[in-house]
Amino acid sequence: MIKIFDTTLRDGEQSPGCSMNLNEKLQMARQLERLNVDIIEAGFAISSKGDFESVKRIAQTVEKPIVASLARALEKDIDAAWRAVKDANNPRIHTFLATSPIHLEYKLKMTEEQAIERAVQAVRHAKKYCHDVEFSAEDATRTSVEFLAKIFEAVIDAGATVINIPDTVGYADPFEYYEFIKAIKENTRGMEKVDISVHCHNDLGLAVANSLAAIKAGATQVECTVNGIGERAGNAAMEEVVMNLKVRQDVYKVDTNIVTTEIMRSSNLLQNITGAKVQANKAIVGVNAFAHESGIHQHGVLANKETYEIMTPESIGLSKNNMVLGKHSGKHALKDRLEDLGYRVSDEELNNIFDRFKTLADEKKTVYDQDLEALILRDMSNMISKYELVDYSTATSEGKESKTIIKIKQDDEEIEIVGSGKGPIDAAFDALGKIFGSEIKLEDFSIYSVTKGKDALGETSLKLSKGDRVFTGKGISNDIIKSSILAYVNAMNHVEYFTERINAQGEGI
Amino acid sequence: MIKIFDTTLRDGEQSPGCSMNLNEKLQMARQLERLNVDIIEAGFAISSKGDFESVKRIAQTVEKPIVASLARALEKDIDAAWRAVKDANNPRIHTFLATSPIHLEYKLKMTEEQAIERAVQAVRHAKKYCHDVEFSAEDATRTSVEFLAKIFEAVIDAGATVINIPDTVGYADPFEYYEFIKAIKENTRGMEKVDISVHCHNDLGLAVANSLAAIKAGATQVECTVNGIGERAGNAAMEEVVMNLKVRQDVYKVDTNIVTTEIMRSSNLLQNITGAKVQANKAIVGVNAFAHESGIHQHGVLANKETYEIMTPESIGLSKNNMVLGKHSGKHALKDRLEDLGYRVSDEELNNIFDRFKTLADEKKTVYDQDLEALILRDMSNMISKYELVDYSTATSEGKESKTIIKIKQDDEEIEIVGSGKGPIDAAFDALGKIFGSEIKLEDFSIYSVTKGKDALGETSLKLSKGDRVFTGKGISNDIIKSSILAYVNAMNHVEYFTERINAQGEGI
Repeated sequence: MIKIFDTTLRDGEQSPGCSMNLNEKLQMARQLERLNVDIIEAGFAISSKGDFESVKRIAQTVEKPIVASLARALEKDIDAAWRAVKDANNPRIHTFLATSPIHLEYKLKMTEEQAIERAVQAVRHAKKYCHDVEFSAEDATRTSVEFLAKIFEAVIDAGATVINIPDTVGYADPFEYYEFIKAIKENTRGMEKVDISVHCHNDLGLAVANSLAAIKAGATQVECTVNGIGERAGNAAMEEVVMNLKVRQDVYKVDTNIVTTEIMRSSNLLQNITGAKVQANKAIVGVNAFAHESGIHQHGVLANKETYEIMTPESIGLSKNNMVLGKHSGKHALKDRLEDLGYRVSDEELNNIFDRFKTLADEKKTVYDQDLEALILRDMSNMISKYELVDYSTATSEGKESKTIIKIKQDDEEIEIVGSGKGPIDAAFDALGKIFGSEIKLEDFSIYSVTKGKDALGETSLKLSKGDRVFTGKGISNDIIKSSILAYVNAMNHVEYFTERINAQGEGI
Repeated sequence: MIKIFDTTLRDGEQSPGCSMNLNEKLQMARQLERLNVDIIEAGFAISSKGDFESVKRIAQTVEKPIVASLARALEKDIDAAWRAVKDANNPRIHTFLATSPIHLEYKLKMTEEQAIERAVQAVRHAKKYCHDVEFSAEDATRTSVEFLAKIFEAVIDAGATVINIPDTVGYADPFEYYEFIKAIKENTRGMEKVDISVHCHNDLGLAVANSLAAIKAGATQVECTVNGIGERAGNAAMEEVVMNLKVRQDVYKVDTNIVTTEIMRSSNLLQNITGAKVQANKAIVGVNAFAHESGIHQHGVLANKETYEIMTPESIGLSKNNMVLGKHSGKHALKDRLEDLGYRVSDEELNNIFDRFKTLADEKKTVYDQDLEALILRDMSNMISKYELVDYSTATSEGKESKTIIKIKQDDEEIEIVGSGKGPIDAAFDALGKIFGSEIKLEDFSIYSVTKGKDALGETSLKLSKGDRVFTGKGISNDIIKSSILAYVNAMNHVEYFTERINAQGEGI
């Protein structure tokens, strides 16, 4: 069995546009447990208060998966990592140090001997707390096999249980990476006692191919993320690694513990939470991945499914039968459906959602899964509600300026202000700009229909910047002016929430 | 030199959401010429009148690249392909036949001997017209090396100049594909005289890795698309194949003729034309691909670029310096800038765009590249203007229904109608629904900001369905209600334009 080490909540979350708050991370962690990943890397505990708190809560929440926190090879990092993961049933400390000449010289300003000493100290310190200790050699693919063998032997002697050999800059080629992993395995004393892990970045589009090549060479753990999110071009996509192993059993002869029918749900949940949508032709989880549109393909598919299908939509949990709720559906049916969609809610949350579900069911004939997701995500993304929309009105006509009046509640005070612009949303943003001040800049916005048909819900995602930090906001409504105002207000609440996270030197591998 | 065979306009265009009209295809073909691809597969001439016309016009327009049309192994297909490409400086006929047992049995209902005979006849027929003939064995990766060697020898004897070995269902693994291509090369008499081509699909996320493995095994041509668009999970992404070869010269020791500094422009043009956006973490061309956000990475990048950068943004033509035009810029400056962005316009088109540029420059302080693209794309997407927006007005307020009144010109008649709904856009769609009838259904919509800041232009993309066909529409305005109405009207014009394309059995490899 190949172990799946999911770093959606660490490497994934630190990429632009993928920030999640505590509630969102907890929902995602629960879904990762259903997906049955072996290890959840929950965050980088020392990097911020918010990260620490998230790792801690995830460690307390999930039952089966190992919960890991990242830590530089520093005592203070390892101490924080341990404090965050110690409540987990299966805790792991994951410490790392760069090993390539370019990183040693320019970033760490260390000799190879100093690096070995530092790595050994870090692993020894982690072992005082925790049996399960992973060591990563950052930028391993630009490091010599000889030096890696030396440092890995030293950390294995110090007690490391997992050795990770990342392609940090996404530089490797599958054939070369295969030989590299094999050479390290053969030249490192003690490597047979530990898990060999790989962590591939996708800068040249080869993260999945490299991960699979490493498995052929003897790797036993793959670090990856849902939808392949992560720094720059992202990490290896979990769903692609897993489905390759499953569909090509004849080649790989190993499998994973992943419940593949949870793949689509995990992908959708992450897209809904972050607003980072995968493109239509994304392998496995894109909306076109299972579409056979051209005439001949349809003809072939009808004649025999195997002519063009190498895997079934059902195997990844994709079904076209949207279960439908209506205005006569009860609270129990709603709860069941939400759990089926991957959301666990408390009784209090359920009551809240049920009220809004009833209102929606009165307005719409049928309530689709996407409608429910929209309802629940509105709750989740509101960690802090310093600002709230009370009311708005707008008027516009072709060729003339629009006016939008917005009433916002800030803590206990109500503020009403009018804005003008090209069209009502532009006018609304003008008004919001006046409320929140010139420090806040609108960077980007987009609006999607989340359900089909005329009474579709619209989801607005937007990005505000304050200084050099970017904050996202989401809003959902069947009136897209309202969804846009809600998104802006939500982003402002994110500004409040994230600003309190300490801006420590975040690191990556 | 590895030849780049670009099939953006054929395999790419036939995927859902990527339809292009004649104008759009011509713009894209011109950009592919600047990118310096070796072969442009311009379409599948027999499949529709529209496809035929596009291939013909592209053949007449581009100068340097070979222009190919796809054709089944049927005389009528090959006749149509020739009629479409014959005006090209360098024409090619690309004919194909499935070779795998499952396709022979279920789709073609042929024996192996019959398939060889059919393939040879097709190549012979094509050779009567054209020196350059490519033969593809559809679903080659599920065909035995023995049978492929047999059929390839036969078609090479019949005069084929290029042999394509596609992974039609995206099933191959790089190591296996490497051995496969090598075995075919070694076992096929005459293979050294022809180009060996590969065409990989991305169902398991390995299209690029497989293409690169094939190059190692001796392939000399790679079929790929800009942004990796194409059926299902798409084709190998041109930009990833090309940049792997460039960045890893040490491994591959071959290069392409691609002008890599045109990559970003090609990617943007395709995204703008089709509305099919790549995800943020798409390798090479995603907005995050060159973003180094986390603290340590920034620290590393500042210390020495190579710590995290394996290629420069400049090498793919990505520059942050948006050239800016203002209201004092003249027609000549506008034309230069448009050409720089990849658009060639006639004098008449330039006059039109210049008028609208002046209007925009009066409204905005600065006119960015994206603004210009928005202006020009509005023209390009309007092949037929059966319907035109004359005027609209709307009023809405929180909690109450919105009313939108729309005036449309249909041919020479004006129609005015009022719609109501949740919010002004919903109300606008309601009105448009009344105008265009209940046969037309709104499937999906999204709105993006195409430029930054408060006076940003909004682009609406939406999909309408009529029966089982889906049509896209785009609209651009700094009032998003207007951009949404324009998108709807544009989609209705597409319904008119595309309905006239014969719905022949489209095929694919």
